[in-house]
Amino acid sequence: MKTSSLSTETIQSLRLLSNQMISKAGSGHPGIALGAAPILYELYANQLNVDPENPNMINRDRFVLSAGHGAALLYATLHAAGFDLSAQDLSEFRQPHSKTPGHPEVGVTPGVEATTGPLGQGLGMAVGMAMAEAKLNNQFPSVIDHFTFALVGDGDLMEGVSHEVASLAGQQKLGKLVVLYDDNDVSLDGLKQRSDISNNLARFASYGWDIREVADGNDLAAIHDAIENAKLSPEPTLIAVKTIIGDFGPFAGTNKAHGTPLDSQQLQDLSSALDVDIQNFELPNNLLEDMRAKISNRLLHQKQPLNDELTEYLQFSTKNTVTIPELPTDLKVQAGRKISKYVLQDFATQLPQLWGGSADLVASTNAEVVASPLFNADDRSGRNIAFGVREFGMGAVMNGIALHGGTKVFGATFLAFSDYMKAAIRLSALQHVPSIYVFTHDSITVGEDGPTHQPIEQLMGLRLIPGVDVLRPGTADEIASAWQQALTSTDRPTILILSRGEIGVQGNTDQAKQSLENGAAQIRHHDEAKINLIATGSEVQIAQKVSELLSLPSNVISMPNLSRFLALDDDKKQQIIPETGTKNVIIEAGTTLGWQGIAGNDGVIFGINEFGMSAAAQIALDEFGFNAEDIVDKITQELQ
Amino acid sequence: MKTSSLSTETIQSLRLLSNQMISKAGSGHPGIALGAAPILYELYANQLNVDPENPNMINRDRFVLSAGHGAALLYATLHAAGFDLSAQDLSEFRQPHSKTPGHPEVGVTPGVEATTGPLGQGLGMAVGMAMAEAKLNNQFPSVIDHFTFALVGDGDLMEGVSHEVASLAGQQKLGKLVVLYDDNDVSLDGLKQRSDISNNLARFASYGWDIREVADGNDLAAIHDAIENAKLSPEPTLIAVKTIIGDFGPFAGTNKAHGTPLDSQQLQDLSSALDVDIQNFELPNNLLEDMRAKISNRLLHQKQPLNDELTEYLQFSTKNTVTIPELPTDLKVQAGRKISKYVLQDFATQLPQLWGGSADLVASTNAEVVASPLFNADDRSGRNIAFGVREFGMGAVMNGIALHGGTKVFGATFLAFSDYMKAAIRLSALQHVPSIYVFTHDSITVGEDGPTHQPIEQLMGLRLIPGVDVLRPGTADEIASAWQQALTSTDRPTILILSRGEIGVQGNTDQAKQSLENGAAQIRHHDEAKINLIATGSEVQIAQKVSELLSLPSNVISMPNLSRFLALDDDKKQQIIPETGTKNVIIEAGTTLGWQGIAGNDGVIFGINEFGMSAAAQIALDEFGFNAEDIVDKITQELQ
Repeated sequence: MKTSSLSTETIQSLRLLSNQMISKAGSGHPGIALGAAPILYELYANQLNVDPENPNMINRDRFVLSAGHGAALLYATLHAAGFDLSAQDLSEFRQPHSKTPGHPEVGVTPGVEATTGPLGQGLGMAVGMAMAEAKLNNQFPSVIDHFTFALVGDGDLMEGVSHEVASLAGQQKLGKLVVLYDDNDVSLDGLKQRSDISNNLARFASYGWDIREVADGNDLAAIHDAIENAKLSPEPTLIAVKTIIGDFGPFAGTNKAHGTPLDSQQLQDLSSALDVDIQNFELPNNLLEDMRAKISNRLLHQKQPLNDELTEYLQFSTKNTVTIPELPTDLKVQAGRKISKYVLQDFATQLPQLWGGSADLVASTNAEVVASPLFNADDRSGRNIAFGVREFGMGAVMNGIALHGGTKVFGATFLAFSDYMKAAIRLSALQHVPSIYVFTHDSITVGEDGPTHQPIEQLMGLRLIPGVDVLRPGTADEIASAWQQALTSTDRPTILILSRGEIGVQGNTDQAKQSLENGAAQIRHHDEAKINLIATGSEVQIAQKVSELLSLPSNVISMPNLSRFLALDDDKKQQIIPETGTKNVIIEAGTTLGWQGIAGNDGVIFGINEFGMSAAAQIALDEFGFNAEDIVDKITQELQ
Repeated sequence: MKTSSLSTETIQSLRLLSNQMISKAGSGHPGIALGAAPILYELYANQLNVDPENPNMINRDRFVLSAGHGAALLYATLHAAGFDLSAQDLSEFRQPHSKTPGHPEVGVTPGVEATTGPLGQGLGMAVGMAMAEAKLNNQFPSVIDHFTFALVGDGDLMEGVSHEVASLAGQQKLGKLVVLYDDNDVSLDGLKQRSDISNNLARFASYGWDIREVADGNDLAAIHDAIENAKLSPEPTLIAVKTIIGDFGPFAGTNKAHGTPLDSQQLQDLSSALDVDIQNFELPNNLLEDMRAKISNRLLHQKQPLNDELTEYLQFSTKNTVTIPELPTDLKVQAGRKISKYVLQDFATQLPQLWGGSADLVASTNAEVVASPLFNADDRSGRNIAFGVREFGMGAVMNGIALHGGTKVFGATFLAFSDYMKAAIRLSALQHVPSIYVFTHDSITVGEDGPTHQPIEQLMGLRLIPGVDVLRPGTADEIASAWQQALTSTDRPTILILSRGEIGVQGNTDQAKQSLENGAAQIRHHDEAKINLIATGSEVQIAQKVSELLSLPSNVISMPNLSRFLALDDDKKQQIIPETGTKNVIIEAGTTLGWQGIAGNDGVIFGINEFGMSAAAQIALDEFGFNAEDIVDKITQELQ
């Protein structure tokens, strides 16, 4: 391939344009915009099968800018490519409610495939997209067949999640994943060697990746050839492109280039150095036409559009419905994770798009589609993903799978280890993707494995994240309803929190329906109740016992979704937790901070504000006062 | 080295003994105990310079069992080595309040160097210990000179944090770090290849490690030789020891060996297969004598004990005091991170043991000892650690540094990215180590970088972790006092939460002292106050303005430590937040869940329960109603 003068001019213009955006905003990241412009140009001009007029075309190639601080360059390139992003939009870079926020945000900017900025996770989402493609390509080979590209920087590759997802991608042999590495030897605080001397190519080779190098990041033909070769490889490919951070600018090759906007004189000098001129964020028409023609010519050679049936299959997520299965009576009081396993099998039959896995804890979380094999390079029909001991990577990959569309994904581990993946859960919520997290072993009842494995603060901590449904069902019916809610969510992630041990309490389908709909519902009612016993998860059975033992009449309320309950209007709240003449008692085996609003000024909260202990479940419960007898005693004292 | 029959007998006995412990407990992990016994034996019998009678000897070799589920084997070995751990203790494995909990817990069991179980972090703590040794060895070469060993499994190496800390260790050229890898091709859910085909030796070589292999995990001489060679290497060494999970047992070589205790018949068969017999958890005396003699003979060749001066230096942490510096008046209203930088320089002069760094955000967090160079392989005198873009790794390494003792460490990043290191912070608290976390850019006032960089739920989320002091100071004096508190903490980690932008409010030293001591203090008082304005961090300046604008008289309370305030008795609370005839108003730019207890039933909470936005700080504040005028309006409406 010969590099045309138009290509060069476009690349230099993208460099200048993105820097003009950054300078106008007064903040941003010039370094990557100047260094990586040829890579972005090559991707959009010569590689990506995308339709700027239909940015959600299901079979488009995906591109994730994992180095999200390169947003200005991405926006400039998307504009050049013809996405619905005007010169005016570019001029509003980093302004409130603009289409060009400081880091890429999916749903805000046409053509942006993922919300990036928190480093390393973009790579993980690209791996997830490539896995979704592999799965759908196996089912619909004639219509789903595309590549996934990502651009990563040194920061992405230093992050631990890069290890998790890259080693998974190698094991999965995701040949249609092509990752470009902006290899510039500089990170925010200085030369990369201050903190890192890794050989990233050798590292990725150790994962089973194909590796390639481009010695000069301005050599467009070399970038092109490397990508063309990468696309032929049966393994995922990492292409290290040696670039100069802040190339052509005043701070080229230094960390000062990373985040220092150019002043007007420096912008003018940059314009001279690049030999291009741009006014009012307007790229010359001939450049726009050239780039857009390249894209639309490729599009003509694209696969056939989908037929209606496939469209429906692949876009099920906007209208999926599932029916709650009947639960066998003997199942109803079993362990939360076991009830979950039972209903999951039924839901999986109803929803062929459902797949997922566990961070090497299938045997414990019971989160699997029993009738299906593992999803891997030899069998893309599998609906079980062996994520490996990679919680954070699992979360990032789940986000990528969900963003890709066409399937529904779950991922499981112990609740204590949700800590490892908090940053991915946050990105699920921020991106409004309906991933399903299954966290079992949800309290000190984990038992002998001890405090490292016993969640305490995680329950309330997860509830703090905006835009997530945290569900801790207290009956088998609530578990089934919680799964149903999770499966039908289209715009927010769900966290299902399940017990290792027995649920032990009989609910019913009506109560469960109410409970999920309103966040809480009475499971035992007394007309003359003086006490409201409010509990979640496997503590509902303790509340039931307390209610039986208390001398005063009481209601028992299961509250699987605290946040939803808090959002109810006062009338509705009072129907569920009557106020008059009553005292509220909370029972949840986790930190108490956060329950005060429900308890009210004179309520009582039974929780655990210290780390757990290595002991059998019942002993641990007793140690922390989590048994009906102790609670009854304390309530009785409190009332005296 | 020739393997004696006593060695073999001891190894086989450790295998049996640890399985007897697991079987008695009814839960635990037989697989690693059977597979890795020769490694543990070699370490304690022939390698570690430790004094079982003085387990805290400062110059001891450190050993971290990163694969913490091997606890039973570790305890059995510590017992054999002569640590204060009796056969009775072994028999109480996994029982409440025993010295032998389900996973190793530092402080509970003599000889246990770190709390492990959450995978990957043990390796990180070993790296931190090796860094602390390198630093102290440079200062006191004649007395501090020891190795750090770790045992890792496939789970540890799949975790992302293993990448972060191993690449850091390679860059740091930690030659006295020797990591043994229990390379058994099996993880919890099955064969490792189900989820991982990485070549871990090649990976570690890419980080600059020395790599070695032992083909047969029962070849004690080969393990010995590999370790002896590793100790000579100027780089850290990974030794992959090919073992068989569950060796000699009924599930050898399969994942069923991982977590299935043997029944009594299987135990008996194991005893036969190993050709050893143990009753009542008592190892034969000749084995105990042999092993203990080996250890004490090595100890005779140890370095001289420390003189008093050095002991004092190295054990400063039990009694360190620092004096708060005078603050220049013009500094008092500046950005939190800048005030922090100023006081840090003074404290660093007072406390030569203080060092730390940032996850590639020194330029932004301002957390550095300006007068000192970087700590690295060429200069171990440096007091600044370039942790790289490795937040989680930083936390794990800090834990290791703190556990090692002799220095005091801090680590910094943006508050939003504390998510990446939550699991390490939890382990700080669980281990009672006084690490200092410095989290800047603490709210939506981060500005244009947008919602991925703007913490919302993190503030309250961190407060939920038991045993951590979360400090969000609202004045320069409070920042100085918060640092002082952090530096003098001996048994719990501190999180300093600092603003990117200006603090903007004048405090004073007395108020700050009270505020840190009680968790909160009035910063503006009115005898007839009808309103208590309670705020944290840079929102205190908003509360001040609100107080000035409100028609009703009000108190302003800065609450840098919510948890400490909540632990006060009611009288003390009321001195700070008067109750009579007042209404409480909370102002904090984070999620509101958790503030209800302070607000009370009729209080008002100004917070943010959604993700932020890419916009200049003041615009973002206005958007979320975080300006004095809007708050005054709402309070006034509320009062009508």
